[in-house]
Amino acid sequence: MGGDKAPQIVVEGAHLAREKYPQAKFIIYGDEAQLRPLIKKYEGLDSVMELRHTPDRVTAHDKPAQALRSGRNSSMRLAIDAVAKGEADCVVSAGNTGALMAMAKFSLKVMPGIHRPAIATYMPTKVPNHGTIFMDLGANAECSSQNLLEFAVLGGVFSREVFKRAEPRIALLNIGSEAMKGDELVKAASEVFQQAHLPGKYVGYAEGDEIMTGDFDVIVTDGFTGNVTLKTMEGTAKLIKHMMKEAFNSSWLVKLGLLFCLPSLPGLAIIYFALKKFSKRIDPRYYNGASLLGLKGLCIKSHGGTDGIGFANAIGVAAGLAVGRFTDKVETELRRLGFEGQPEPQPEGAA
Amino acid sequence: MGGDKAPQIVVEGAHLAREKYPQAKFIIYGDEAQLRPLIKKYEGLDSVMELRHTPDRVTAHDKPAQALRSGRNSSMRLAIDAVAKGEADCVVSAGNTGALMAMAKFSLKVMPGIHRPAIATYMPTKVPNHGTIFMDLGANAECSSQNLLEFAVLGGVFSREVFKRAEPRIALLNIGSEAMKGDELVKAASEVFQQAHLPGKYVGYAEGDEIMTGDFDVIVTDGFTGNVTLKTMEGTAKLIKHMMKEAFNSSWLVKLGLLFCLPSLPGLAIIYFALKKFSKRIDPRYYNGASLLGLKGLCIKSHGGTDGIGFANAIGVAAGLAVGRFTDKVETELRRLGFEGQPEPQPEGAA
Repeated sequence: MGGDKAPQIVVEGAHLAREKYPQAKFIIYGDEAQLRPLIKKYEGLDSVMELRHTPDRVTAHDKPAQALRSGRNSSMRLAIDAVAKGEADCVVSAGNTGALMAMAKFSLKVMPGIHRPAIATYMPTKVPNHGTIFMDLGANAECSSQNLLEFAVLGGVFSREVFKRAEPRIALLNIGSEAMKGDELVKAASEVFQQAHLPGKYVGYAEGDEIMTGDFDVIVTDGFTGNVTLKTMEGTAKLIKHMMKEAFNSSWLVKLGLLFCLPSLPGLAIIYFALKKFSKRIDPRYYNGASLLGLKGLCIKSHGGTDGIGFANAIGVAAGLAVGRFTDKVETELRRLGFEGQPEPQPEGAA
Repeated sequence: MGGDKAPQIVVEGAHLAREKYPQAKFIIYGDEAQLRPLIKKYEGLDSVMELRHTPDRVTAHDKPAQALRSGRNSSMRLAIDAVAKGEADCVVSAGNTGALMAMAKFSLKVMPGIHRPAIATYMPTKVPNHGTIFMDLGANAECSSQNLLEFAVLGGVFSREVFKRAEPRIALLNIGSEAMKGDELVKAASEVFQQAHLPGKYVGYAEGDEIMTGDFDVIVTDGFTGNVTLKTMEGTAKLIKHMMKEAFNSSWLVKLGLLFCLPSLPGLAIIYFALKKFSKRIDPRYYNGASLLGLKGLCIKSHGGTDGIGFANAIGVAAGLAVGRFTDKVETELRRLGFEGQPEPQPEGAA
């Protein structure tokens, strides 16, 4: 029921996801009176969707601890519990991120060997169909090098299982490529990464302008830097889109130009479709769906402001991880690398 | 003599800057045999340019301490010394950033009241002709809240003097807008900012996607986050440009479309100029020229990979600060706010 335009986007998203994942089945938690008419709009959707009435909900303003205490019957919590009970393979929510993480940690439990779950997404790159896993997106503002190492394991398995990279190239986000560059955390983490066994190969530092070159498969950073980076990308893309619109809309000369082009309608149509194709490649909806990694069950966070297409994409991420049996594979990998049973690490530089 | 394409871009930049700043005079340090023929290419340039022969140079690979020790006769060092001696109002270099900062600190000295100089730039925003000052871009990977406060003072005076904002809106970069969000540094800095007198108004937190909305005049962060953010913007803009080119180049259909449009040449020309105008607004060369702030003299860092247009823009930044008597105004402001003579602060969270 979460997100700015819920529950419409959730129902529409499920409808759209059906085409690509015909074997998918849905349990939807929320207010029946609101949901029933929405589901009816899409023919046949009710045959793959079970509706469970829940009037309670977590709002965007609820603090994580508060949601955890008083949201036991909320749609978010019950959907997570369905994964914990094995009734569902994955939960997808467009609601409050902090509450989702707190509830998912409580109900699904953190994997043995992982101290802090993280949020990961894949970034578009110059290389078509080659996404780079980027994390943490903000679950852990303060991190230790051990936290970053665990993120690298989670990201490495993600890249291997979902993007089929045999040996993912794993990098640490930094402000230069030389060993002496960066803050204490990243320098300590680099030492740890060089010694550690990883599901992939540690290739050193990646800079901010290298996140989307396709030269790296997994890029790891703390949640503060990761969140700022992700939002900076969004902001830059929005600004460019805005400036482009402005360049075309502001001037009557451009309108005159388009008028001149009218005799060449087929040509304009083709250019229009090229622009459309480009727009789709940079459309954030097609990259929607961040994964909460390090939990004993699958949990996907959709952007709160997305639409049905975006939500369907988040369902697609969930389907990919569920079909690939991601959770089992991470647990096996953690055992193989000897990550289980390590004590809780301290943030680098803490007294 | 620094930068990937020096000294060509330096000479061409000076030539281009002459048109906009006819009163500007240049002292150029470098290899005379290389420079003399370049200067001759631009008529009248030699009448506003004094050439001082210096065969020594700092390379891109020199470590700051090494450059400081052995680069006493390098073009970079002598150009900085010219500012220290009062022979020049500002130094502009496209060379090694670390070496430039180390030499500038040594030769120009840090202002009383400032513990660590920072690097600032202005970011394009949705609002035409409204740049947002963003800093630190990487001079200080590790910061204390006092460091950030000093950056805010420097940025506030920059915004007021160069962009004529009467009361600059100053924000801290963070991962959310609520008080509880962020890491220890940003929370401590927010407390300090609320108590402090600033050349402007502290308006709270700005997120990554708000850097370029035009809602803030100065955005302050540590050098690690700032550097990653700046490079992420560059990377995002490059990726979008690449994808756009690809959408237009890859398909024979698009070429056919352009062929169809040929009868409407005037229309195409107008659309082409709209695209050009847009390209110019997102062209990093027009935002080139980062300022080393907090020193007793003016020092501007040009991007190493820029061209003559970009270098001319960096000269423009220098001219703006020199004409506005920026250094004097910062010193006055620091005295007024009582920043002088405070002890060196410790990074937040350090033992």
